Amino acid sequence: MSRSSHGAHSPNVTMRDVAKAAGVSIATVSHVINDKAGARIGDDARRRVQDAVIALGYRPNALAKTLSQGTSRFIGLVADQIATTPFAGQIIHGAQDEAWRHGYVLLVANSDGNAAAEDEAIAMMLEHQVHGILYSSWYHREIDVPEQLHQADTVLVNCFAPGSGLRSVVPDEEQGGRTATDELIAAGHRRIAFVNTTTPSPAKVGRLAGYRAALAAAGIDTGESLVVEASPEQEGGYAVAQRIVDSGATAVFCHNDRVAMGLYDGLRERELRIPEDVAVIGFDNQEVIAAHLRPPLTSVALPHYELGVAGVRILLGLDPADEASPTLISCPIVARRSV
Amino acid sequence: MSRSSHGAHSPNVTMRDVAKAAGVSIATVSHVINDKAGARIGDDARRRVQDAVIALGYRPNALAKTLSQGTSRFIGLVADQIATTPFAGQIIHGAQDEAWRHGYVLLVANSDGNAAAEDEAIAMMLEHQVHGILYSSWYHREIDVPEQLHQADTVLVNCFAPGSGLRSVVPDEEQGGRTATDELIAAGHRRIAFVNTTTPSPAKVGRLAGYRAALAAAGIDTGESLVVEASPEQEGGYAVAQRIVDSGATAVFCHNDRVAMGLYDGLRERELRIPEDVAVIGFDNQEVIAAHLRPPLTSVALPHYELGVAGVRILLGLDPADEASPTLISCPIVARRSV
Repeated sequence: MSRSSHGAHSPNVTMRDVAKAAGVSIATVSHVINDKAGARIGDDARRRVQDAVIALGYRPNALAKTLSQGTSRFIGLVADQIATTPFAGQIIHGAQDEAWRHGYVLLVANSDGNAAAEDEAIAMMLEHQVHGILYSSWYHREIDVPEQLHQADTVLVNCFAPGSGLRSVVPDEEQGGRTATDELIAAGHRRIAFVNTTTPSPAKVGRLAGYRAALAAAGIDTGESLVVEASPEQEGGYAVAQRIVDSGATAVFCHNDRVAMGLYDGLRERELRIPEDVAVIGFDNQEVIAAHLRPPLTSVALPHYELGVAGVRILLGLDPADEASPTLISCPIVARRSV
Repeated sequence: MSRSSHGAHSPNVTMRDVAKAAGVSIATVSHVINDKAGARIGDDARRRVQDAVIALGYRPNALAKTLSQGTSRFIGLVADQIATTPFAGQIIHGAQDEAWRHGYVLLVANSDGNAAAEDEAIAMMLEHQVHGILYSSWYHREIDVPEQLHQADTVLVNCFAPGSGLRSVVPDEEQGGRTATDELIAAGHRRIAFVNTTTPSPAKVGRLAGYRAALAAAGIDTGESLVVEASPEQEGGYAVAQRIVDSGATAVFCHNDRVAMGLYDGLRERELRIPEDVAVIGFDNQEVIAAHLRPPLTSVALPHYELGVAGVRILLGLDPADEASPTLISCPIVARRSV
């Protein structure tokens, strides 16, 4: 047990440690430390807290602690679209859980994809002497690194910047595409269509590579006619329904759940049943859609929570990471009833 | 111009103020202040930044500033479900924008609706001497106030606690229900059904009151047969489709967009067209659903961004608020093509 982590006047002792040592709740510790008028704390509990504060060397002022250390217990997280999808929220949730586990607090800033707000967010974090910064994108993409990011220890989350020297953590799109296709192959399908997105992106390239790898591994020869492209929303999936029917496919892997939702409507209009006539699998596992379609949609989940966890672990040096290529996080299947 | 806000050694001067005074970007200020090796800053720009730092009394260390003031420029925001819906993200976005406008930084913590995590989140914020705390719920509800919240200046956002003495800001459910119903009346409908939720909540009570008030104001007598209850998801809306058809309603106000999505399917199976045969209006304006149904769904928006803004304004004393009753924020209509 080193002096710096457990000895007298340790900068790392938290209110939680005091509560544990005193056998009381964090609320009780807070009451005693802040000497809150009107709080009904028994004399015995109050004394136990005071004893624990002295024994552990707890300092109630986190900011004073930070100054005395020269570096803070903050980790900054810059997110570009916190308000549009639940995806950013899941990255934040994972990052926060992992940060707290190691005694760090997350400073979150939403940049709204706006360069001025982003500059301000990063400046704010530098002013608060963050231990490091997680820079995250709500969808997986290559980014231009804001110059200021080089002033902090930075990990890119759900995005990457080749040649920047910054470590990054992204979803394994190819494995995800392969997992989706394997699920359809395992259900007995041989004629499997893929509705890919029209938008150039790592998801487009990776999921297609995974689809092809799965078919090749199963010895299935597939013509390009089974790969169609559609705008990555409900409207796109709806629009390609006839092409899917014409292709003779018995199963369809959709680029995302929104495309699958539109395809459901198009197949239904043609009186095709899911999964009896056509099996459908989505991607993203966007709960509000996937779990509530009829039938509920089997999907491959984007691992946003795990990306947040992995970003913090790399930033804190708990997990290794290669600057030359992104760390890949696996995309698991969420089985429902559409396959 | 008071000395405290603009004079020498003001604790409120930010990097942005320095950038503005020097006519350079925030990134440039950051480079000069941190004396970053390798940054290519012209001598002229460097001198202008240094002049502005002296003239404005800027102190680069935000934490030292905080300690010297005794209270911090942090506002805490505790959110219960940051990862499940985009709603929490919108509250955070609004709160951040308004906090930044006044030189404050948001410390965000996700409690996941878990009492232990919530205790820890609030303790963390108290340790960081937050100026105050916004305590938010992802859906509008009455809450039991965690005891620790009384140790900080607190405003409840999207929730309320009668008798707690805490100010709160919530959506105006009754106005929203009235707005939705008025939209259907204005389109010429007289037989208007309401699919309410089975879940007891301020939304259930308020939207029903608004529905009734709108009908009464238009002189429309409506039997209770036009109000049905359903579980507040797609499955609930789908299940009541036959009852809606049997009621002879020409228009339906749905408790939320998910219910409307299920009802769409149920109406379509019965070969009814939207809006020609039955007009449908939703509530929540959940973009991923409402904007992409066929036809796109007219909805009443929950004002999450505005709730975040209002919470910060009340906390900073910029807007008045009554401790005896919640401040109500208006729910605007978002017209699409289902009415």
